[in-house]
Amino acid sequence: MKELLLVGIGAGDPDYITMQALKALRRADVIFLLDKGPAKHKLNALRREICTRYLDGHTPRFAEGLQPERERDAADYRASVDELNRDKQAVFKQLIDEQMADGEVAAFMVWGDPSLYDSSIRIVEAIAAARGDLRFEVIPGITSLQALTARHRVPLNSIGRAVEITTGRLLAEGWPQGVDSVAVMLDAKDSYLRFVGQGLHIYWGAYVGTADEILIAGPLDEVAERIAATRAQARERNGWIMDSYLLRKAESADN
Amino acid sequence: MKELLLVGIGAGDPDYITMQALKALRRADVIFLLDKGPAKHKLNALRREICTRYLDGHTPRFAEGLQPERERDAADYRASVDELNRDKQAVFKQLIDEQMADGEVAAFMVWGDPSLYDSSIRIVEAIAAARGDLRFEVIPGITSLQALTARHRVPLNSIGRAVEITTGRLLAEGWPQGVDSVAVMLDAKDSYLRFVGQGLHIYWGAYVGTADEILIAGPLDEVAERIAATRAQARERNGWIMDSYLLRKAESADN
Ligand SMILES: C[S@@+](CC[C@H](N)C(=O)[O-])C[C@H]1O[C@@H](n2cnc3c(N)ncnc32)[C@H](O)[C@@H]1O
Ligand SMILES: C[S@@+](CC[C@H](N)C(=O)[O-])C[C@H]1O[C@@H](n2cnc3c(N)ncnc32)[C@H](O)[C@@H]1O
Repeated sequence: MKELLLVGIGAGDPDYITMQALKALRRADVIFLLDKGPAKHKLNALRREICTRYLDGHTPRFAEGLQPERERDAADYRASVDELNRDKQAVFKQLIDEQMADGEVAAFMVWGDPSLYDSSIRIVEAIAAARGDLRFEVIPGITSLQALTARHRVPLNSIGRAVEITTGRLLAEGWPQGVDSVAVMLDAKDSYLRFVGQGLHIYWGAYVGTADEILIAGPLDEVAERIAATRAQARERNGWIMDSYLLRKAESADN
Repeated sequence: MKELLLVGIGAGDPDYITMQALKALRRADVIFLLDKGPAKHKLNALRREICTRYLDGHTPRFAEGLQPERERDAADYRASVDELNRDKQAVFKQLIDEQMADGEVAAFMVWGDPSLYDSSIRIVEAIAAARGDLRFEVIPGITSLQALTARHRVPLNSIGRAVEITTGRLLAEGWPQGVDSVAVMLDAKDSYLRFVGQGLHIYWGAYVGTADEILIAGPLDEVAERIAATRAQARERNGWIMDSYLLRKAESADN
């Protein structure tokens, strides 16, 4: 048997790591790295930082998966995600086959929490279902939304109300029905700009929990332009951006 | 100045605690306990367990707030929550005034994450706004929903789709529009039973992350009755229950 641990490491500060995650990483013989794109270097440095700081001298080896770079087909989001995931599955398979021996434990350090807008669970589930020799476990981690709300010191929900977690792509289609709070991830296109003039409040953050953290909050009408400019500058400066935000209807903003 | 740390401790396993939370707790002179009701003993035992296990010999004192027990007025949920929160605010104020000296740091160990269906941030925000001598900070923790999805090894969202986090009370009004995944907390009335016959999949868990953990998953039509019976028994046996669940439209269940 081989064992694979999908370990949520939190989405920013290395200190977001949980004791459960550290215990899992200390059991690992090998740590798989799979990131790609412009943020890869920074995110992997954070992963190594966690290991150096907190594994009490345990030194798993690192194995890097080589994922093919593809043009994202913006026109068909779902198909391009499927394609990405097929690639990722092939890389995972290869790492499991070639980079770990029978009886070994591998850990994959998932950014944030493995349950939120991340394909690792689905991919490993599919691989494990197709073979008899792979067990896996999931360990939760602090999501970027929790990092965001903690840094803004603001609740995710207003009292007794629901919250929708969504993507920039979906938000661009309109305000989700029936909720007063919407948490938005994966927004490459400043979708919040469409909601100016509707009395919303925004809590925005980029690179939350890291040394590059930027936070802006206020009535959307007053801060939207500043967020858009700040975002563009930060993306330009770093070559990539990780940001998310919470939008709330104003009558609920100070509940 | 006085400093108050709202520290998310995770919602079950003491090992859900983050390094950031432990560092905060090690800075605390005093830890405030405010729970009440039938789960109080168990939850406070878990809090003390975290301190014993992980504070490296640092021993903050504990100060218990005495919160009046009130009948919950089920007819007006919002008013009864307001009342509860006024009580809680009075208790917080008293603890800050009477149980900590100037220059001291107090920590409040919040179950799960302070941002999710918890009033601590709002209450402390209100207290801090009314006086000049109180600083506060929020530290994120693993929510019960992350514990739930990790133990079921299932993503919260299906690919590219939104998720609604809601309460049993709101779910009883009908399926939230526009989403295929709904995560439900604070459900005292088995609201999932209303959705039998609609091809949903459920991932249910009680006391997740603790020694009493119970997990049931499957097509809602097949497992709903078993969940209802298991819930009733567990609540009877323990005198209280903490459970939550994820419902997903079946066509998305294996995405
Ligand atoms: C593919 S999703 C992964 C989310 C991750 N699993 C989590 O639990 O947060 C990536 C998105 O998460 C958000 N994100 C991740 N880290 C962030 C951070 N440190 N600050 C702000 N947003 C972040 C951004 O919206 C980004 O587009
Ligand atoms: C007042 S809310 C607090 C939520 C908490 N702040 C969090 O982050 O999970 C309490 C609700 O959380 C859920 N809950 C808390 N702990 C749980 C656990 N260990 N297992 C299952 N559900 C839990 C239940 O739905 C319960 O009614």
